Amino acid sequence: MKNFLPIQFRESKLHLLDQRKLPNEELFVICNNIEETHHAIRDMVVRGAPCIGFTAIYGIALWLKNNVYEKKKFIEACDFLISARPTAVNLEYEVQKVKEMVLKVEDKTNVFKFLVDHANKEIEFSESKNLQMAKFAADELERRYSNKKLKLLTHCNTGFLACGSLGTALGVIEYLNQLGRIEKVWVDETRPYLQGSRLTSYELTKLNIPHEIVVEGAATFLMENQMVDAIFVGADRIVSNGDTANKIGTANLSIISKYFKVPMYTVAPLSSFDFNSSSGKSIEIELRNENEILEMGNHRIAPIAAKAFNPSFDITRGENLEGIICEKGLFRMPYVDSLKGLI
Amino acid sequence: MKNFLPIQFRESKLHLLDQRKLPNEELFVICNNIEETHHAIRDMVVRGAPCIGFTAIYGIALWLKNNVYEKKKFIEACDFLISARPTAVNLEYEVQKVKEMVLKVEDKTNVFKFLVDHANKEIEFSESKNLQMAKFAADELERRYSNKKLKLLTHCNTGFLACGSLGTALGVIEYLNQLGRIEKVWVDETRPYLQGSRLTSYELTKLNIPHEIVVEGAATFLMENQMVDAIFVGADRIVSNGDTANKIGTANLSIISKYFKVPMYTVAPLSSFDFNSSSGKSIEIELRNENEILEMGNHRIAPIAAKAFNPSFDITRGENLEGIICEKGLFRMPYVDSLKGLI
Repeated sequence: MKNFLPIQFRESKLHLLDQRKLPNEELFVICNNIEETHHAIRDMVVRGAPCIGFTAIYGIALWLKNNVYEKKKFIEACDFLISARPTAVNLEYEVQKVKEMVLKVEDKTNVFKFLVDHANKEIEFSESKNLQMAKFAADELERRYSNKKLKLLTHCNTGFLACGSLGTALGVIEYLNQLGRIEKVWVDETRPYLQGSRLTSYELTKLNIPHEIVVEGAATFLMENQMVDAIFVGADRIVSNGDTANKIGTANLSIISKYFKVPMYTVAPLSSFDFNSSSGKSIEIELRNENEILEMGNHRIAPIAAKAFNPSFDITRGENLEGIICEKGLFRMPYVDSLKGLI
Repeated sequence: MKNFLPIQFRESKLHLLDQRKLPNEELFVICNNIEETHHAIRDMVVRGAPCIGFTAIYGIALWLKNNVYEKKKFIEACDFLISARPTAVNLEYEVQKVKEMVLKVEDKTNVFKFLVDHANKEIEFSESKNLQMAKFAADELERRYSNKKLKLLTHCNTGFLACGSLGTALGVIEYLNQLGRIEKVWVDETRPYLQGSRLTSYELTKLNIPHEIVVEGAATFLMENQMVDAIFVGADRIVSNGDTANKIGTANLSIISKYFKVPMYTVAPLSSFDFNSSSGKSIEIELRNENEILEMGNHRIAPIAAKAFNPSFDITRGENLEGIICEKGLFRMPYVDSLKGLI
């Protein structure tokens, strides 16, 4: 295991990279029990839906290690873990799944080791899906650009910090770099929360992948000057017509890239697909606190009286994407037809 | 004169709003002589090409007030003022023009008062041109939207802080607000230097114009949701095919606005037109220090090893603008023909 991965289970302890301190302090928080795991999730030491899920499994394993099994107490411990971030749907889902598994095991003697193995396998399984997506992306770029070294652009954070290992759009970039195919990665700083400057640049630095950070405003400059061969982004949700919800600023890129005929791809596992929605219009967009825009650290940027409007996500129309990549393959317009086989 | 304007000449003293302290401290630096004026220009108390030009005229006036006229010393004083910002072409141009004027005056007795009047008139003349542009814009919007209250979007800073009074794109907005036609202004924060959050929001606050700050990434969200009726921006240079150089991020807006059929206008006086260039391709783009992106105040955002690429301007293609507005009128595609009459 690479020693910089954000979730590491060693010597019966959970080591979590403290993502609040990134990029310029690398501290690991060590969790010896479920209480410390609860705090780490609650206080956002760990972030990203996949990472929170993996952390929760190890947290339950630690409870089973430290306690004599009793059904009632075990269920209470699971509920306690869920309460660390009550609105994180993914956390509850993962904990419930693991709880059911444990309840079904007759002999609880080895259930600690069983759960640790399970968590390790979940991380490996996620990585294998990411690798599969990366290979589909690499095939596509090979068809388009043959052996050329590539200049790629990405937005927000989709690498090992969010996904435990490899990642989605950044997994593509890491894989292409292993093949020696990366000339440079342009990293959108990703306002207002600066996930690009803080986290993606950290990941690329760790992976020794050449990159430069740009403001979102520079997209046209880069594409007009043939400085981008392709764009890779992740997705929070993909609906059946190919509309995708992702970090604010993604949809700008899709329109500009289409204007300049630079292919843009969304990379996300099947678990991000929502075939119950037929169009992005039905996706509700989270409005976040205006202070993310008006302040920087404790410093007020804007006039005291100023207000800001802070939608956190936007909808990229499927028609503006060159393709959507999941572990089953690369899908193209019209998505209503091409994605149908995945349901 | 409105008491918040950035350049005020009263009681034989030049009062300059200290723009380094904005938006949350309003301090005026008082210049009693050409030395203090030189320092104010050098230290960026005052900024924006028009404002630097006006300040320089008052600075020379102050020298004439404080000194017995001697040709050699006067020329030295002019050169001294130019040296405050040696690369500011506009500063040298204004000082040379005023120097020639003064050298031609036979009786130097009233030349101090003459120059103060001249500077006042230059500011008024600039304002009258801005007002003329605002009226052309208002006519255009009246044709498009009749009496509707408008939601407008702007980028960077083009108001009284840069222009002395009224301003170009922001002059349009101020004028429309006087007509009761503004529902809301969306202000791009304008990374990396945050001219929108710091300066444009300050201007709009002073003018009591309802506005909210957004990240550049939100452009598609706003236009997709019909929250923008028109976009107004300034320009650093406009060439004969309508290509315009303006703050990085402007060209993104032009492409996205064309996609959503939201009309976008560039507003700039004739002095910004360069008919010697036939296309924006010949305009050289200033690359600024990467630390504008990597740091915020004294705080490092990105990893220590990270690099950034910081082009300060981009080129908006004329074909993506609904119109270009100067004091002679509103001009439309094809600009090669429509702008010809201005040469």
